[in-house]
Amino acid sequence: MRLACAQLNYKIGDFAGNYEKIAAAITQYAQKADLLIFSELCLSGYTPYDLMLRNDFITIQNKIIHQIQALTKALDIAVVIGCVEINKGKGKPFHNSLQLIKGDILFTYHKRLLPMYNIFNEARYFTPGKEPGIVEFQNKRLGFLICEDGWADLASELYEASPIDDLVNQNLDVIICINGSPSNIGKQEERIQNFTAIAKKCKAPLLFTNQVGGNDDIVYDGGSFIVDKTGQLIGSLKQFTEDAGVVSLNNKTFTQIQNFVDTPALTESALFYEQIILGLKDYVQKCGFKHVVIGESGGIDSAVTTALAVKALGSDNVHALAMPSRYSSKSSVTDAMLLCKNLQVKCQTVSIEAEFTLALSQFTKNYHEAPLAITEQNSQARLRGRLLMEYANQTGALVLSTGNKSEMSVGYTTLYGDMTGGFNLIGDLYKTDVYALARYFNHVNPDTLIPENIFTKAPSAELALNQQDTDALPPYEILDPILKLYIEGDLLSPTEIKQYTEILESISPNLIAKVHDMVDKAEFKRRQSAPIVRVQRRAFGFGRQLPIAATYPKL
Amino acid sequence: MRLACAQLNYKIGDFAGNYEKIAAAITQYAQKADLLIFSELCLSGYTPYDLMLRNDFITIQNKIIHQIQALTKALDIAVVIGCVEINKGKGKPFHNSLQLIKGDILFTYHKRLLPMYNIFNEARYFTPGKEPGIVEFQNKRLGFLICEDGWADLASELYEASPIDDLVNQNLDVIICINGSPSNIGKQEERIQNFTAIAKKCKAPLLFTNQVGGNDDIVYDGGSFIVDKTGQLIGSLKQFTEDAGVVSLNNKTFTQIQNFVDTPALTESALFYEQIILGLKDYVQKCGFKHVVIGESGGIDSAVTTALAVKALGSDNVHALAMPSRYSSKSSVTDAMLLCKNLQVKCQTVSIEAEFTLALSQFTKNYHEAPLAITEQNSQARLRGRLLMEYANQTGALVLSTGNKSEMSVGYTTLYGDMTGGFNLIGDLYKTDVYALARYFNHVNPDTLIPENIFTKAPSAELALNQQDTDALPPYEILDPILKLYIEGDLLSPTEIKQYTEILESISPNLIAKVHDMVDKAEFKRRQSAPIVRVQRRAFGFGRQLPIAATYPKL
Repeated sequence: MRLACAQLNYKIGDFAGNYEKIAAAITQYAQKADLLIFSELCLSGYTPYDLMLRNDFITIQNKIIHQIQALTKALDIAVVIGCVEINKGKGKPFHNSLQLIKGDILFTYHKRLLPMYNIFNEARYFTPGKEPGIVEFQNKRLGFLICEDGWADLASELYEASPIDDLVNQNLDVIICINGSPSNIGKQEERIQNFTAIAKKCKAPLLFTNQVGGNDDIVYDGGSFIVDKTGQLIGSLKQFTEDAGVVSLNNKTFTQIQNFVDTPALTESALFYEQIILGLKDYVQKCGFKHVVIGESGGIDSAVTTALAVKALGSDNVHALAMPSRYSSKSSVTDAMLLCKNLQVKCQTVSIEAEFTLALSQFTKNYHEAPLAITEQNSQARLRGRLLMEYANQTGALVLSTGNKSEMSVGYTTLYGDMTGGFNLIGDLYKTDVYALARYFNHVNPDTLIPENIFTKAPSAELALNQQDTDALPPYEILDPILKLYIEGDLLSPTEIKQYTEILESISPNLIAKVHDMVDKAEFKRRQSAPIVRVQRRAFGFGRQLPIAATYPKL
Repeated sequence: MRLACAQLNYKIGDFAGNYEKIAAAITQYAQKADLLIFSELCLSGYTPYDLMLRNDFITIQNKIIHQIQALTKALDIAVVIGCVEINKGKGKPFHNSLQLIKGDILFTYHKRLLPMYNIFNEARYFTPGKEPGIVEFQNKRLGFLICEDGWADLASELYEASPIDDLVNQNLDVIICINGSPSNIGKQEERIQNFTAIAKKCKAPLLFTNQVGGNDDIVYDGGSFIVDKTGQLIGSLKQFTEDAGVVSLNNKTFTQIQNFVDTPALTESALFYEQIILGLKDYVQKCGFKHVVIGESGGIDSAVTTALAVKALGSDNVHALAMPSRYSSKSSVTDAMLLCKNLQVKCQTVSIEAEFTLALSQFTKNYHEAPLAITEQNSQARLRGRLLMEYANQTGALVLSTGNKSEMSVGYTTLYGDMTGGFNLIGDLYKTDVYALARYFNHVNPDTLIPENIFTKAPSAELALNQQDTDALPPYEILDPILKLYIEGDLLSPTEIKQYTEILESISPNLIAKVHDMVDKAEFKRRQSAPIVRVQRRAFGFGRQLPIAATYPKL
């Protein structure tokens, strides 16, 4: 039997567009494979959220399934798709399902473990299936898993059912696991470790398929892979791009392997780089934008944002606005200019000085008092926000906001100021991650360098005379470990925890508590943030649900 | 046996503050009652969201439970509390539990039905209990339910378990249902209808306790009530305020009833009025603000927002900024002034004209072209947003944004402009609801009237010459039924659906489709909105989870 696997980039809810991609793959592989495997909820893309609850959703989806049935019949190929099925019993209205189709729907399997943590919310929609996913097809015994089903052994405390154990001693010829598995640091390594163990435990070769592409804040990396029956990884499809592979399956062994290759693990910075670029590319394309505009401060955050945007969209589709005020150092503008020159990005200088001067004098005239430092500082940021939005309104560009995770954590950021924007590339990168990513960018793009001075100068918001970030915050080498432990400490590896804890050994508990308090108090700002490309294990957004008007309990 | 019930206003996560309230009630009722009943998750307040997942949460909570144990022992009274308990079996880490305490923890019951729809997300944290909640206490047989457990009969398709049926034929002396039940239109009537049926079915009197108070966007209305064993409502505690009641229980009959009184159902406008006022009061107090500032346009939205804020906070704590431009009609400022005079609110006029003129000339100078209408219009809104934030930064005031649900639905609103603010009172009121609420306001506050001219003039954003809302939108009498059916049609009553459908019979399907499309395309704006006080069955926010970069499937 020839198996093929297509990892495609779906647009959420776009049944017609997604069907086109699926049909093209079916047509392309009809001669080359007996069974072509897609990913979880491939018809709607993972995940459609409350679109699933709309009256028309199932009707439209099922029309697409009928088209797939007809196509597979005409081309004499079987497919495995992921789709939403109506639950006929008690519970939530749907199942998260898998169908084996060749003209007819030959077999249906319902996902049994429904993740309810971090960004996952499947029990809002689905009822767990109860039956193991085993079927005989063309003289092969196929075992099926859908995404979370395959993590049963690592999350055995969470679930009563054991979909993996149900595939043990079943004399399976192959295990097929379809996924909508988001990318974050360490994820592909965790997948490989976990699914190689499953193949070994079940003594069957295994094929893991994933979707690829950015859907709002969540990016799927593809990286579909195959494992032999002893639990050895054979190879992977590419990460962060559409790809497909074909193998022959005989005697529980994959042979004649096409496109599944040995893929070294990405470094953290390389992962951030690939993931953010794809996330932006897809957000822009799927929302119908063409180009973006970025406020260019001369600092590392806007520099990295601009550099990544150029890689995602091309320099013609990236516009920079340098918006200096009296507090901007000379090098801010020259660094921004040099950066844009290196990246071949058009950078326009639009001083806010005249407007800032008027704003200050109007304020004093209206209120008969001078603005406080906080008022004056935020007003500059908000003037810049308005200028960016004027450019966006005039040209149809998407504004990229440039707050990093360190700033967003402690609220060192201005609502409607530097938080202005429809999408944020680096909001899940701590400041030290931003520097590392910038270094990586220069390493892989030696012809379009982020200027050295942007790395070496002290970070500053430049909203007051000689202001530096360290006036208000601990140095980032200290701040970031505090934040990492506080925000995602429960999800880090023991090595990471040890590393960060050691850095903090000499730091006063008062300072650490003060930082925690800043994080808690900034929740109201994050609630109004643009979507942030998620790259760490816990990003701000849906995966971290916290109240605003609250006391955050502490011992 | 004497039963008491305390409906208190908890701050989320504030174990120490919540304990103070609970302890005060225990002390107050120790002589008057044998058993004092609090509401669901009363120690942390409902609902603590991901605060539950923090290491310290259970430790701190359990210290409070020990204090309650000691206090009930010292004062010789029993209590029923709601709390988080560790799940020792498989599944999510916790149970949503009820404890009967008198010195010792005498009985524990775990909530069996976990709501997973609209704003509810309990399967993220809890594992359902498996046992019915029946216990003998002081020669009475008590039956317990926790919130969703009591809706089993109306949601029988959702759940396998039937906690109500498990209380039938159990010869119970009383059923006690503790709740964290949010308010929205029709909710108290639905509760009474549902729980009177339970009492009748189980042939036992029933006591329903609820918390009260605003927690971010969600407001709990209290309105705890008692029902006799034939299913007759006896009376309710007050809605939208802390309250407590006492009854004697003998032979399955409540006697010597204190504070549970006959309470007529609130009209929609009266409910909106009470709910929004409490929502604001609590958000301001629980976040540590003292006063608010509102951009006063002379229109109905800012007028209603200001009027409600005065009722919540007192006129001394409400500040209005009128920010006219060249496009503001004369009556805009005079209406705003008259409104503020009537409400005894200080209103300051801060023209944006000078800044707007400079913004326009800077734009033309920078880009060598005139701003488009959209650019020019949004810039005015954003100048005003910045002025409001300057006032807020300078004084510590909370900015109230004033977008109504009709505008927020179709995106007829400016990000970082009129959407500026930390909290929105009327974002869940369609424009026609806003007018009705304003009429109600004048009805109950004849000494502080919203001026008549604010009702009668045509709605306008006044961002262009002679602009009216109907230039871009259908009249609100048409728009609002389209929106209500599209956004929450699945949750409306048959009467409402009929009423709105009839209004739309003569409206072109193209116009309706166009409005739907506007709603879908404005999702990115709503994602950056301030929290909106939820009053309808489906509000924007957590109860409506939709993607941005998506195609919204339609037949």
